[in-house]
Amino acid sequence: MADQVFTFDVPTEIDKTVLGGKGCSLMQMSNIGLDVPPFFVIPCQTCVHYMENQSWPVDYEAKIWAALKKIEDATGRKFGDSAKPLLLSVRSGARVSMPGMMDTVLNLGLNDESVEGLAKDSGNERFAWDAYRRFIQMYGDVVLGVPHKNFEHILEGLKKKYSAAQDTDLSAEHLKECVAEYRAMVKKTINEEFPKDPKDQLIRAINAVFDSWTNERAVYYRNMHSIDHRWGTAVNVQSMVFGNLGQTSGTGVGFTRDPATGEKMIYGEFLPNAQGEDVVAGIRTPIKISDMESVGGVWPGVYKQLCDNYDKLEAFYKDMVDLEFTVQDGKLYMLQARVGKRTAAAMVRIAAEMVKEGMITEKEALLRQEPNKIGELLHKTFDPKAVRNVVATGLPASPGAGVGRVEFTAADAEARFNAGEPAILVRAETSPRISSVTMSQGILTARGGCSSHAAVVARGMGKCCVAGCSAVEVDEEAEQMKINGKVFKRGDWLSLDGSTGEVIEGQLATIAPVFSENFNLILQWADKYRQLDIRTNADTPADAKQAVAFGAQGIGLTRTEHMFFEHDRIYSMREMIVSETAEQRKAALAKLLPFQRDDFIGMFKALEGRPANIRLLDPPLHEFVSQEMDFAPLIKATGKSEEELRAFVDSLAEANPMLGFRGCRLGMVYPEISRMQARAIMEAAAEVQATGLEVHPEIMIPVLNHVNEMEAMRKLVADECEKVLAEKNIKVDYHIGTMIELPRACITADKIAEHAEYFSFGTNDLTQTTTGISRDDYNKFMPVYLDKSVYPFDFFQRIDTEGVGELMKMAVQKGRTTRPGMKIGICGEQTGQESVFFCQQIGLTYISCSPFRVPGARVSAAQAALLYPREQ
Amino acid sequence: MADQVFTFDVPTEIDKTVLGGKGCSLMQMSNIGLDVPPFFVIPCQTCVHYMENQSWPVDYEAKIWAALKKIEDATGRKFGDSAKPLLLSVRSGARVSMPGMMDTVLNLGLNDESVEGLAKDSGNERFAWDAYRRFIQMYGDVVLGVPHKNFEHILEGLKKKYSAAQDTDLSAEHLKECVAEYRAMVKKTINEEFPKDPKDQLIRAINAVFDSWTNERAVYYRNMHSIDHRWGTAVNVQSMVFGNLGQTSGTGVGFTRDPATGEKMIYGEFLPNAQGEDVVAGIRTPIKISDMESVGGVWPGVYKQLCDNYDKLEAFYKDMVDLEFTVQDGKLYMLQARVGKRTAAAMVRIAAEMVKEGMITEKEALLRQEPNKIGELLHKTFDPKAVRNVVATGLPASPGAGVGRVEFTAADAEARFNAGEPAILVRAETSPRISSVTMSQGILTARGGCSSHAAVVARGMGKCCVAGCSAVEVDEEAEQMKINGKVFKRGDWLSLDGSTGEVIEGQLATIAPVFSENFNLILQWADKYRQLDIRTNADTPADAKQAVAFGAQGIGLTRTEHMFFEHDRIYSMREMIVSETAEQRKAALAKLLPFQRDDFIGMFKALEGRPANIRLLDPPLHEFVSQEMDFAPLIKATGKSEEELRAFVDSLAEANPMLGFRGCRLGMVYPEISRMQARAIMEAAAEVQATGLEVHPEIMIPVLNHVNEMEAMRKLVADECEKVLAEKNIKVDYHIGTMIELPRACITADKIAEHAEYFSFGTNDLTQTTTGISRDDYNKFMPVYLDKSVYPFDFFQRIDTEGVGELMKMAVQKGRTTRPGMKIGICGEQTGQESVFFCQQIGLTYISCSPFRVPGARVSAAQAALLYPREQ
Repeated sequence: MADQVFTFDVPTEIDKTVLGGKGCSLMQMSNIGLDVPPFFVIPCQTCVHYMENQSWPVDYEAKIWAALKKIEDATGRKFGDSAKPLLLSVRSGARVSMPGMMDTVLNLGLNDESVEGLAKDSGNERFAWDAYRRFIQMYGDVVLGVPHKNFEHILEGLKKKYSAAQDTDLSAEHLKECVAEYRAMVKKTINEEFPKDPKDQLIRAINAVFDSWTNERAVYYRNMHSIDHRWGTAVNVQSMVFGNLGQTSGTGVGFTRDPATGEKMIYGEFLPNAQGEDVVAGIRTPIKISDMESVGGVWPGVYKQLCDNYDKLEAFYKDMVDLEFTVQDGKLYMLQARVGKRTAAAMVRIAAEMVKEGMITEKEALLRQEPNKIGELLHKTFDPKAVRNVVATGLPASPGAGVGRVEFTAADAEARFNAGEPAILVRAETSPRISSVTMSQGILTARGGCSSHAAVVARGMGKCCVAGCSAVEVDEEAEQMKINGKVFKRGDWLSLDGSTGEVIEGQLATIAPVFSENFNLILQWADKYRQLDIRTNADTPADAKQAVAFGAQGIGLTRTEHMFFEHDRIYSMREMIVSETAEQRKAALAKLLPFQRDDFIGMFKALEGRPANIRLLDPPLHEFVSQEMDFAPLIKATGKSEEELRAFVDSLAEANPMLGFRGCRLGMVYPEISRMQARAIMEAAAEVQATGLEVHPEIMIPVLNHVNEMEAMRKLVADECEKVLAEKNIKVDYHIGTMIELPRACITADKIAEHAEYFSFGTNDLTQTTTGISRDDYNKFMPVYLDKSVYPFDFFQRIDTEGVGELMKMAVQKGRTTRPGMKIGICGEQTGQESVFFCQQIGLTYISCSPFRVPGARVSAAQAALLYPREQ
Repeated sequence: MADQVFTFDVPTEIDKTVLGGKGCSLMQMSNIGLDVPPFFVIPCQTCVHYMENQSWPVDYEAKIWAALKKIEDATGRKFGDSAKPLLLSVRSGARVSMPGMMDTVLNLGLNDESVEGLAKDSGNERFAWDAYRRFIQMYGDVVLGVPHKNFEHILEGLKKKYSAAQDTDLSAEHLKECVAEYRAMVKKTINEEFPKDPKDQLIRAINAVFDSWTNERAVYYRNMHSIDHRWGTAVNVQSMVFGNLGQTSGTGVGFTRDPATGEKMIYGEFLPNAQGEDVVAGIRTPIKISDMESVGGVWPGVYKQLCDNYDKLEAFYKDMVDLEFTVQDGKLYMLQARVGKRTAAAMVRIAAEMVKEGMITEKEALLRQEPNKIGELLHKTFDPKAVRNVVATGLPASPGAGVGRVEFTAADAEARFNAGEPAILVRAETSPRISSVTMSQGILTARGGCSSHAAVVARGMGKCCVAGCSAVEVDEEAEQMKINGKVFKRGDWLSLDGSTGEVIEGQLATIAPVFSENFNLILQWADKYRQLDIRTNADTPADAKQAVAFGAQGIGLTRTEHMFFEHDRIYSMREMIVSETAEQRKAALAKLLPFQRDDFIGMFKALEGRPANIRLLDPPLHEFVSQEMDFAPLIKATGKSEEELRAFVDSLAEANPMLGFRGCRLGMVYPEISRMQARAIMEAAAEVQATGLEVHPEIMIPVLNHVNEMEAMRKLVADECEKVLAEKNIKVDYHIGTMIELPRACITADKIAEHAEYFSFGTNDLTQTTTGISRDDYNKFMPVYLDKSVYPFDFFQRIDTEGVGELMKMAVQKGRTTRPGMKIGICGEQTGQESVFFCQQIGLTYISCSPFRVPGARVSAAQAALLYPREQ
């Protein structure tokens, strides 16, 4: 594959792993009869070959020239020609989109001869020299490594010299002077002439695109998005068309539906007499495509053609299409078409409406959902009743409600985030660091449109963005901005409404989200197809209620220890901890019992008959005490001296608490603790059952290692449960199971299952022990590991199927040997799509996650069932 | 089986799992024609039945009476008879010996009628009433649960009343009075008459022996010795014979060889006119059996018979036999014979000499060795006759006998050594300077376990160490410590027993070790048969030399970090740690390089051509610094303020250092550290090779998780090695492998083996991660777990074959799929017999242990090869 070149005239299999996304898009548009400038594609495999060998495959150059010849023939132009020169664009295009991460060169093929040809041919000398100037600047920056600011400096100097307000105010002569200065500066900077031979230009540009695959921001982006570093990028070489040949030319970008709301419409923007980068860079503010008709001239005709193309593209892609086009002298050329990025709201609406339109099936609609974006639909919006002090309005580039303190640099925004404070990142014109977008509550830019880099990145991450807000004047040096005369300094509060584009002074109040009809439809379809149950991790009745509202089918994990931190309970807890005898311990536990019982009553009521998996006390006891705590209540309760108590607290310290005296080890040594908890659960169950509600408590033994622990703990807990039921003379449907969170438990799961009625994977601890990585400490090396792709991803964000997953598989298989069909869940918050797919594949019964992840998990589970169906 | 009774007259298969040890011994003696009093055996299975059902099997009582009838017939006596009464002993006898743990009843069958018959028959009224008294006392205690002191109280009262100095001074009349008082007291205490019916007596005695299987001390003993609680005990019911019928009667115990030295001789003691318990109680001083001839009377004849029996027993058992006998009216009865317990010296000598005598084969001699006792032959030991004033007990971290004067700092201990006096170094918690260990007679630490740095270093040097002795409270400032309230000052004498963990006040007398000719023979045979190689864990040339002397075939683990604690190196190490840039780090490392190189030169020389597996830096960097260290050198070297440095030291702290920034993670983030170590190894190899010695360095990557780490580290290390070799223009046979100490590494061993040339299991860390147990913290729950048999044994003392072992098996199997026949060792000090057997079974290449464990490991490995032979 590496030694091939794919040309526009030969039908080729549409394979993104070969042609890359952009290459496929060109081939496809060609196939469905749209006008596309002639092109050829250098496949990703050639880039891989280049990375490995720092050279091209044997005889590859000849193949490039042959492909070039085809473009020359189709366009009737010649590369480097002084009459009708062929100009090329050279663009990256990886298997998955990495917007703005890699390099592009335009207008390639210009030199002192061909610029004359271009001038003659276009009849526009100024245009030709401007193209030449742009080419030198771009090529100098991207291929030759000449700093961007060197060019800007010269250009600004000339504008000042000739009192030009805009670039467009410079004449052909001025631009010739600019080109001369550019070339002199390049030579001085890199000690080499700017390359004149167009073939030389092309070879070096291709290599520069290859190299840009491994530039710093591209590597960072791939790490963020778990993209394989070994894929490489394709290179698309295409005949240039110009949108800046005058008022019958122009360029634009569009979507077949509104990417923010999902509404079906002719959506998009165009700029007359402009090149593509002018739209993206956001220097001039564009016109809506839907307003094209009213512009007159060639535009109503172009508009009709565009509408037609919109229909053709949607019919072909059966999805919302993101497209780019250029109009050259009244003729429309399609430059790119691909399935477009969209907000969560648009994702849901488009899918649901396309089902209603009969364009796709329910299953296809479900498979198109990005479950991790669904969370956006659950997040807050501004309180409609709150009074908005709107200071300016920009473009609604990415929806959401962002509230934070103003910062003007990525570094400052990240620092504020790390300090635990919300930041709003404000930039004049921006290619923001992705990390700074992640770490900000919202992005505000003075220039750029909805297609600017900042907007695209923000939408991808579900961050709110207001773009092109021209009222904003940033003074980075003074660390402040002016909006319509009003000064905002670093740290001032600001609120952004990404759905309206409003910039609001201060901290605006927010409210909980509303579920749209389309969203409910998607969730209903998800429930119809999924095979995994979805439960929630919840420690309070409020959480449980929220999760039930989001569709949770029960509780997958209640951490009882969190309950002991509340109010005065912590004092009784501490009294229990410092007890010297079982009697003292029982006395302190007796004080905790009513609190625990009340906790569980609240949980059972909130669940309205759904099952609740309750984990017995898990953390080491020293987590409940510290040298900094108030010793007075404890001194009073125990009669011990502060010195004694402090010494005792010290004695509880552990070298590795994660592997210490915790989980069922506590119950094995202090059985009275587990008895109190079992009693509280069953007394609560009895009380709630008496009100007519069903209760299904599941009692879970944590940190289990050995079947003997399971047998002993089961006996202990069941004994106490039966005692309570005998006292109350009732029956309750309860079960006793265990958390599988140690490798040894996985390995001996068949034995453990003899005494455990169900399993629940604790993937956090299981990952910590299997990989020997403490999540509390891994920041010291994990960033380096991810940067260098030593680990393919963070095992705490996604199940390490090759390592941890093997143990999980073993546990499922062994557990069900002795207890066929046993219920097995997972409660480690591993609800990323890949993790859910894995859970489906190994046959889990349910997954459990925090309430706000429940809707996303329902959708992931449906996708898992569609992709990896199993008999049930 | 449970419903059977085995009688003396029916030949029965000798099976300890049925008859128990004592039952087998009776049957066997019977079989080879020795005179044994008639008996029957109730098998272990009946005890198990009784434990499970609290009743006997159906019709079992009738079988007991039938068996009893056979004894009556053989002896011509009748149970409960008033003329010639049959008296019985009822004894426990489990599958393995549990000396003194369970109950015994003697003289059973006596009541007010049969005591008269015994008096008549023996012609000795006093003897009969004394037997009756003893029976009531023993039966009352064991079967009826009457406190022993109640009987003692009555007996003492009568002795006072009749001015009797000894029990023997009491007349028949006095004993009648005693019996009457005993019975009245029994009735008062338990509100029940002492049982008169002999059959009733027997049934209850049998049940009492059954019950004694589950008494507290028996359970404790079984936990201590890893004996299965489900086995139950057999019950041996036997006709009584009396050694206390006068001067032609007596009782004795003997060994067919000297159990302390192993010398072949007629070894043993006897007491004329005495019962067995008189010998054990030590009230009268017995006579040597070898002196029997000179006693005259019946004794020379008995002696001749005994010598004959010694020969018969050794010929039958083909081992040293431990025997008991009683002479009644001049007739010798054998009561017990079993393979006898012996010291390490005797174990070696007996086995070697029996081979020379043609009695057993070399293989049998090897299989009889207890490898864990072999260590006793390598260390100075305490004189067993010396009286021990034990003040506390800690963990037996390194065997040996240490006697010296207490010192609290390394410097003071060294000073005392230099002054020619022995020191015992006492530390609260310690990373001792290696030199201070060398210069001390023993190490005592208040905290830390058997894997603590102090313990590892001490074992490596054959120095005794008692660790984790929590009773020790060190007050370094006051230069004293308190042990259970008692104060020890600097210079006070202290003795440490590293084999028991005992801390002994004063100077206990010691005896020196000898490497006997027989011991050397055993070791030669071991080498002849074993298939596992034996290597050593050694961090210093002295250790390596010692291990080679003990037969080590190379180094299985060198921990390079210990080298950094020595002398001034620690300052450069700290300088490296606080470096902010790679350049600073390299500068500090450059200072360490010559030291490391010298270390390795020493090691390679000591090994004389044997391979050395060297582990790259493993512990987290914070182990090399502390807030208590001297900051002055660091301030000087770095120019930083103390405040900055202290803050940096704080920033290194980890929540779970065991799972933190350590092992290869250090090399992945700071490659210059691994490069320095690789360079030091290869420069040392080059230098030593130049002297004509072979060198075979193996460089081991620690804490490996993922194949990508292996690939990257291998590349890094190999690159530096090749650089050195190129500089020196030589070749060195070196290999790069990895430690397998994380579950994930086991699971993905096939991938890792693509880049690792060998594996070495680090079973300590592998056990910690697999079981989620931190060895530093497990003292809080492990004692309870072992007491309750929750875990069958301590997984750090013996490989957890069911859990950790499964992962090891997986790693071996997977590793050799991609790298057939790859070298795989283990360096976790798991050299217990069962662990070595497991290593043999899963196909390891070698095991590695501290120098003083090498000889024992050679023997274990030979046993493993004999029991689980494999093709090689």
